[in-house]
Amino acid sequence: MRTHLAILLLGTFAMPVFSDEGMWLLNDPPRDRLKEKYGFDLTDAWLEHARLASVRFNNGGSGSFVSPNGLIITNHHIGADALQKLSTPERDLFRDGFAAKTQADELKCPDLELNVLQWIDDVTDQVNGAVKPEMKPAEAFAARRAKMSAIEKYSTEKTALRSDVVTLYQGGAYHLYRYTKYTDVRLVFAPEEKIAAFGGDVDNFEFPRFNLDISFFRAYVDGKPAQVRHWFKFSAEGAKEGDLVFVTGHPGTTNRLETMEKLKHRRDITLPYTLARLRAMEAALIQYGERAPENKRQATTDLHRVANSRKAFSGQYQGLLDPKVLDMKAQVDNQLLPQIVIITPGSEPYQKNYRDAVRRIADVQDVYATFEKPHNLLENGTAFPSTLFTFARHVVRLTSEADKPNGERLREYRDSNLESLKFELFSPAPIYPELERAKLQAGLTFLAEQLGGGDPLVLKVLNGKSPSQRVDELLASKLYDAAERKRLVEGGVKAIEASTDPMIVFARTIDPAARELRKRYETEVEEPERQAYGEIAKVRFALLGKSIPPDATFTLRLAYGVVQGYEAEGQKVPFATTFGGVYERAEKQKFKEPFELPKRWADGKAKLDLATPFDFVSTADTIGGNSGSPVLNRAGEFVGINFDRNRFGLVRNFVYTDVQARHISVHSRGILEALRKLYDVPGLVTELTGH
Amino acid sequence: MRTHLAILLLGTFAMPVFSDEGMWLLNDPPRDRLKEKYGFDLTDAWLEHARLASVRFNNGGSGSFVSPNGLIITNHHIGADALQKLSTPERDLFRDGFAAKTQADELKCPDLELNVLQWIDDVTDQVNGAVKPEMKPAEAFAARRAKMSAIEKYSTEKTALRSDVVTLYQGGAYHLYRYTKYTDVRLVFAPEEKIAAFGGDVDNFEFPRFNLDISFFRAYVDGKPAQVRHWFKFSAEGAKEGDLVFVTGHPGTTNRLETMEKLKHRRDITLPYTLARLRAMEAALIQYGERAPENKRQATTDLHRVANSRKAFSGQYQGLLDPKVLDMKAQVDNQLLPQIVIITPGSEPYQKNYRDAVRRIADVQDVYATFEKPHNLLENGTAFPSTLFTFARHVVRLTSEADKPNGERLREYRDSNLESLKFELFSPAPIYPELERAKLQAGLTFLAEQLGGGDPLVLKVLNGKSPSQRVDELLASKLYDAAERKRLVEGGVKAIEASTDPMIVFARTIDPAARELRKRYETEVEEPERQAYGEIAKVRFALLGKSIPPDATFTLRLAYGVVQGYEAEGQKVPFATTFGGVYERAEKQKFKEPFELPKRWADGKAKLDLATPFDFVSTADTIGGNSGSPVLNRAGEFVGINFDRNRFGLVRNFVYTDVQARHISVHSRGILEALRKLYDVPGLVTELTGH
Repeated sequence: MRTHLAILLLGTFAMPVFSDEGMWLLNDPPRDRLKEKYGFDLTDAWLEHARLASVRFNNGGSGSFVSPNGLIITNHHIGADALQKLSTPERDLFRDGFAAKTQADELKCPDLELNVLQWIDDVTDQVNGAVKPEMKPAEAFAARRAKMSAIEKYSTEKTALRSDVVTLYQGGAYHLYRYTKYTDVRLVFAPEEKIAAFGGDVDNFEFPRFNLDISFFRAYVDGKPAQVRHWFKFSAEGAKEGDLVFVTGHPGTTNRLETMEKLKHRRDITLPYTLARLRAMEAALIQYGERAPENKRQATTDLHRVANSRKAFSGQYQGLLDPKVLDMKAQVDNQLLPQIVIITPGSEPYQKNYRDAVRRIADVQDVYATFEKPHNLLENGTAFPSTLFTFARHVVRLTSEADKPNGERLREYRDSNLESLKFELFSPAPIYPELERAKLQAGLTFLAEQLGGGDPLVLKVLNGKSPSQRVDELLASKLYDAAERKRLVEGGVKAIEASTDPMIVFARTIDPAARELRKRYETEVEEPERQAYGEIAKVRFALLGKSIPPDATFTLRLAYGVVQGYEAEGQKVPFATTFGGVYERAEKQKFKEPFELPKRWADGKAKLDLATPFDFVSTADTIGGNSGSPVLNRAGEFVGINFDRNRFGLVRNFVYTDVQARHISVHSRGILEALRKLYDVPGLVTELTGH
Repeated sequence: MRTHLAILLLGTFAMPVFSDEGMWLLNDPPRDRLKEKYGFDLTDAWLEHARLASVRFNNGGSGSFVSPNGLIITNHHIGADALQKLSTPERDLFRDGFAAKTQADELKCPDLELNVLQWIDDVTDQVNGAVKPEMKPAEAFAARRAKMSAIEKYSTEKTALRSDVVTLYQGGAYHLYRYTKYTDVRLVFAPEEKIAAFGGDVDNFEFPRFNLDISFFRAYVDGKPAQVRHWFKFSAEGAKEGDLVFVTGHPGTTNRLETMEKLKHRRDITLPYTLARLRAMEAALIQYGERAPENKRQATTDLHRVANSRKAFSGQYQGLLDPKVLDMKAQVDNQLLPQIVIITPGSEPYQKNYRDAVRRIADVQDVYATFEKPHNLLENGTAFPSTLFTFARHVVRLTSEADKPNGERLREYRDSNLESLKFELFSPAPIYPELERAKLQAGLTFLAEQLGGGDPLVLKVLNGKSPSQRVDELLASKLYDAAERKRLVEGGVKAIEASTDPMIVFARTIDPAARELRKRYETEVEEPERQAYGEIAKVRFALLGKSIPPDATFTLRLAYGVVQGYEAEGQKVPFATTFGGVYERAEKQKFKEPFELPKRWADGKAKLDLATPFDFVSTADTIGGNSGSPVLNRAGEFVGINFDRNRFGLVRNFVYTDVQARHISVHSRGILEALRKLYDVPGLVTELTGH
């Protein structure tokens, strides 16, 4: 790891051979690096094609068009939310899979929104220009928010495209992203959970892997399949060892440009809290699921999500406990920037600004530590992990925010976001009362554990009841019904004030305390950090230019790397697994859950070419949110679909390494082999391959 | 609940009808209450017989003799530790059960010690007499400890019996307990885990239940079955609805006599910490177990234990969040004692003492809060959940303590305890390196989560490594081998100082910090609490006598109650389940784990009388540690074996209620029916029934 960092450091000065680090902005792509290291010309046409064929799944993942008729491929675990919402006790699509015989059989998802990025504008000067030096943090925050909302509203009205101002470099730059939006999205195909998630939590973030982690959807416009000009040609051959590959997708969060003190704050406060919360929720979901098979069906996607987060955050936490990782980070902080400052003539003025900004960010952490738990619990709602509560809060806040000018509203209620918000809020997807009960009781209990049973906020929330009695009371709500939610939103503040619905009353009651915590966060943490990181970014850009891309923000990025294996525990790990391997692993694990094969796979072994590549790895730089990202070859063809990292890649939130860290993809040849031999979907295969 | 408390309060004054509350001392039994409420004469002979036929399992449970040839019955989950240690990858006795064909086939347990209580002496005056009013807490603690060790040593030397001074009423009384000890204990019979723990974590602490939670062992003396004069006759008929029943056993811990501030400290500090720890450990064990079938076998008893604790502590925590439970407790605190003080002529002097003691205990909680986490983590060792570490610490401490006078040693190294300690320390039971790794890594990670990655203690423990690297380093120890542990203990301090074994070096390195925390606990918490509770006990005894028994202390107690059902969620829950019920429940759960029946039971349904009672409930007052306790009828016959409480009984740590709270037992008729019809053990049946 140290060796590689040394190369990176040198590289930053002398520009020799770079590592494959980087989740690059599409408007600031690494053309020079690709040219130099791989002799690849990243043309505007290649980039535009990649951008317009890439799809964001608004529930937290990526995907891509793979036919001119709006066919989209993503992971099974990204389609899972829709699969679950389309399921009933009698028809479990998440577990058993689905294949539409004809387009007429494709199933409309209740609340899935997809975005395709059309345009990027740099609006940094406009956003920062709204903030005057003499402003106090609260004023600065308000002015900045008003400007962002105004830019978005103007853009939406002018272009009719979804328009989001994205904060980059933690406040060093602001870009306006405009998206085409699809809200009529239909399920085309999904395999069985047992092969999509073969190995379950055990094999999650491990390699070798054997997962057909795919699902297909189709975007519709005006009731007809969307006709798209940009889509990825499905490569029948797929990725080969040593290939240069590209990944386009929507990495969620990285923390590489955060200061050391911010990372230590994550290590000592944020992550321990997060892990405690996830473990409590995971235990509650496991217990709920074990009570009956139908419970397990209801809880399964929640459980997958929580277990996956727990494992990812555990990996992050282990990374921050590893002195080697912190050393790498310290080298970047202590040597890279200040050292350049020292050795670069004329850079002295930056030095003070940089040190001052670093100190201010450290101070912010001390302040945040004093109210981070209640802020997370009450305002971020981690104490109320209930769909009904989420709806109730939106209903209460939306009605009161709607009466304010656009620029003064809480960000999620700005005009340009209301359509997407209401699409979720009025979703007809099922809500399971007993699952709500289990989750909310776990949340209220966790609240008390974190703040203490005698804390005034806890007493207010519990209202003189035990957690279980309080949950009984709250779940007598009528918000299960989307029509009731609509009625309240349309009735405005008056309807909310008149409501005696227990969950509405609850959301109303705790709203002043929650808003107060949000206000503190905005003015004491968010705005000061943005200003300080803005200073750091100025130093960075002046000295290094944009040679280091911004941290991930769940917006479209381009990564690249090489398809190659690695060594672990003295063993060589080949770049790809085969279909033969899944049968071997299942047998070794005695076909016990989570290593049970679906019947179709157990029975169909003889039909398969067992040497077909199944999953493979590359060095490209990915993180959570990249799930479902297309993996492309030089020709821009689809050679695989990213679905995971190995455990060595779990520290990539903080530092990029490629000695052992890899992202993991399903191989396009494996996908075709499975669809052709095991699934009766000739139409889908023809649509993908043209024959 | 309130109604019942009112009766209790009145009862304490006027002695009318009592509830069945009470884990009574065998030397202070509730003769009057039994006479009055049930017309039962509790004779000395009945009590002596019950005492001498009751057995303590030193690993945390209860049992009883059920034949003159030293045959002992306990729960499967109490025998589990021995079953696990006797198992190998090829022969999984915990999962598959065991039946010795002849006595020669009975399997010797590697480190199981059983105790039978022979004698109780009140030594309160001696112990308290060692403490002079002018002593500072540290001196008082040392003087008290020295006196207790001296009493025990004298008793051991005089009687050759295991001798323990037991602290009762949190420091209000001290009794000397003398035990016969059995260390040659052999496994006779155990059923399959699937029927012993049918319903697993889902049904744990629930009723109706369907568990054959039993196992049989035999005590040996000089290589021959122990011949015992006192053993319980096995009732072929068993418990009937409405019967008065008795439970003798070793309840572990209750907190009913603790002050309100102590309970709030538990609610706000101790229990949230404990729950976080158990969830972290449970998650680690589940993940370890899922990696391979052999892993699951290794981890299974640890996992059962942790999951059971998590559920029990969760129930306690929910109880302390329930205003009704705290109200009941407040009524006892605020009305019972002070009100008596006020209304009883001549009691004024007690009033000040009582209030003063309550205040001192509250102050102690504030002090303890400042170092409770590091004390738990380092000194209690919750950060190092590793068998090797436990051994290393004992080896390091035992050698250094052995050089001190008996009265000055840490309590566990007093002369009278060394034989039992060495029996554990030199156990040949297997230790699994990969399981050690998983547990220790989880522990070190939890340590960092709790104290922060930059805490000096954490840095000292991790020694510049990541948790996983540090674990690799520590597990290169040679302490897996009992002979090596023996060699070090025999080599004394010199051998320890010369040792380069990484686990020994580690235990040595952190010992000063751990001892410092222990010292603080002893002088700032333990001794001040004992003195304050001693004052409260004086008030209590003076005004109420011993009408309220002391909190549980894992010593022999007598409880009594009535076999009866209850109502829950508007439904009547009958007092007993039947064999028919287990088949119905398994079918309803589609025979999915943890509701899978063993093959013997699935195949054997037709052989069974399905109306046979399986499990039943009574109002007797039990808690964890009572597992395996015999349930006796008026004639002192064995009519069942306690194995659990229902969830309403989880608040019994703090308050006794009998509206819905019940303890759960396997019915003696059910045991015989299963042994006769499903298990090929005619010898065992004959030994139990005489025919």
